Amino acid sequence: MPELRKDPVLGRWIIISKERSKRPTDFIIEEYKSSGGFCPLCPGNEKTTPNEVLVLGREPGLPSNSSRWQVRVVPNKFPALVIEGELEKEGEGLYDRMNGIGAHEVIVESPNHDDRFAFLPPEQMLLIFQAFRSRINDLSRDERFSYVMVFKNYGRAAGASLEHPHSQLVALPILPRMVTSELEGTLSYYKYKDRCIYCDIIRQEIQQDIRLVCQNDHYVTLTPFAPRSPFEMWILPKKHSSSFTDVNEESLQGLVDIFSESLQRLDLCIPNVPYNFVLHTQPLRSEPLEHYHWHFEIVPKLTSIAGFEWGSGFYINPMPPEDTCRYLKDAM
Amino acid sequence: MPELRKDPVLGRWIIISKERSKRPTDFIIEEYKSSGGFCPLCPGNEKTTPNEVLVLGREPGLPSNSSRWQVRVVPNKFPALVIEGELEKEGEGLYDRMNGIGAHEVIVESPNHDDRFAFLPPEQMLLIFQAFRSRINDLSRDERFSYVMVFKNYGRAAGASLEHPHSQLVALPILPRMVTSELEGTLSYYKYKDRCIYCDIIRQEIQQDIRLVCQNDHYVTLTPFAPRSPFEMWILPKKHSSSFTDVNEESLQGLVDIFSESLQRLDLCIPNVPYNFVLHTQPLRSEPLEHYHWHFEIVPKLTSIAGFEWGSGFYINPMPPEDTCRYLKDAM
Repeated sequence: MPELRKDPVLGRWIIISKERSKRPTDFIIEEYKSSGGFCPLCPGNEKTTPNEVLVLGREPGLPSNSSRWQVRVVPNKFPALVIEGELEKEGEGLYDRMNGIGAHEVIVESPNHDDRFAFLPPEQMLLIFQAFRSRINDLSRDERFSYVMVFKNYGRAAGASLEHPHSQLVALPILPRMVTSELEGTLSYYKYKDRCIYCDIIRQEIQQDIRLVCQNDHYVTLTPFAPRSPFEMWILPKKHSSSFTDVNEESLQGLVDIFSESLQRLDLCIPNVPYNFVLHTQPLRSEPLEHYHWHFEIVPKLTSIAGFEWGSGFYINPMPPEDTCRYLKDAM
Repeated sequence: MPELRKDPVLGRWIIISKERSKRPTDFIIEEYKSSGGFCPLCPGNEKTTPNEVLVLGREPGLPSNSSRWQVRVVPNKFPALVIEGELEKEGEGLYDRMNGIGAHEVIVESPNHDDRFAFLPPEQMLLIFQAFRSRINDLSRDERFSYVMVFKNYGRAAGASLEHPHSQLVALPILPRMVTSELEGTLSYYKYKDRCIYCDIIRQEIQQDIRLVCQNDHYVTLTPFAPRSPFEMWILPKKHSSSFTDVNEESLQGLVDIFSESLQRLDLCIPNVPYNFVLHTQPLRSEPLEHYHWHFEIVPKLTSIAGFEWGSGFYINPMPPEDTCRYLKDAM
């Protein structure tokens, strides 16, 4: 059983995933799955993954786990958290721990091994966002879970261990620090100003037009004022909304358009750059929040000293976001 | 002039170091300085660095920047922050910024290019810790600075861009989030218990003896209860003290002994593993704090998905600290 442990000073939770445990010398980074080898996510190899929990684009009548699908969601074969069991919160002296109950799923983004997320046809990317929404809604019915984190690691340097296009989600029984810090920060601004800070950011960025990469009727992409990395981008809905699961189909289409455009602009600036994106949305089963605003953060993996910087909360970014914004705008 | 910018939601400060700015395609990780090439930190090449700000082990009477020294501290040739100027704090709409005033120095740990920190003779490592203490004391006289962060990147994967053994320090006009979060967490515990949480951790770890790697009269090394990475180690003084600069010579000798032993144990488990260490100490010119306890945190660079995890505050660690502790204990 994996275990959740809380750092007693910082309140930061860590997943100790013993199932993935190794000998000390095994930590050399694993071989990247090359296009030539066997791929467990390719059509025809459905039996090599755990049973699918969602499939989109399969004709009615075909059996589950058969090989005709457009998007397929399966439990991670090496999950960081397990779905079965109770949390059993307990102390150990001054420390706190609980069982590592949760879900860890892989969203297979396309049947085509060589597809790249940034260049997917719009109808394909739409299915992926629909899968995110559907899985979050489904997992929110499990009262043990507080949050579903949806993310993508693209490229080996950004943590992808499989080449086949995929993203991941983790359902957690606790709120990650990213979420609690954002909720605290936005609430504090809201108490003072009675406005959502992200709504204010969007207004200011559209007005200033120095960090605005692109926009459409529903969304903006901007390079944030204080980015951790060169070419960091945030995609935010223009209309206030605290939960990604509240997006309607028209808005999702706008999200597909701006996501594709933003990632394609990035790819034109730095071809095939590794990146992570993370969906930031409100906790499960929360009422709509006036002070919070869901969004995606896309962080390219560019600077080699990231390890130290993420750990210390102390970041050095060699390029102002106004410059990266200009590069991104000029790219197309 | 570099610039400091605050994320308006999280309160996280970022250094935008325009002097280091590059074109988008230049972000591919720089060539690692091989032993064969020119090394600016080797004796004889003192003219290729900025003028030294501290030297230890040079015979009296020899001119500054001459080539006889044991430890040499020089300003970073490509500093993230600059020493000259005023902070000029200002707003930009809802954002906050100030000039990137600070110091960025390189501590050259040995004249020998091929030395490794973990295997330095004790008298050499002692000089390095004395250099840390001396530079922090010196920089604390500059009222513009709030904090001096001392750290080491060992190995290219951990962010070292030069092979010659060296560590770094950055004097900052603001407190990094690592520090404010630790101060808040420890103060909250202190208010409730009237005790330093790190003192309690040390007591519990010595009593439990399942995460205690080694100890001597003055220090303990432990694998923390909720580590971000396999083989993460913390080195803490047994006697309560909030400031590294208060260590006396006898205690420093104990620090040298346990630091060498801890890193050598790590090296026996995973030969030549890249790592970062960071000194955690109180803000400059602070009164001694009852609730804070200075220490070093050593984090090996082992897991490839670190980029995503540091960013989201959501960590998956494949090996419990009790296991890594056992490996570290059995190594010698």
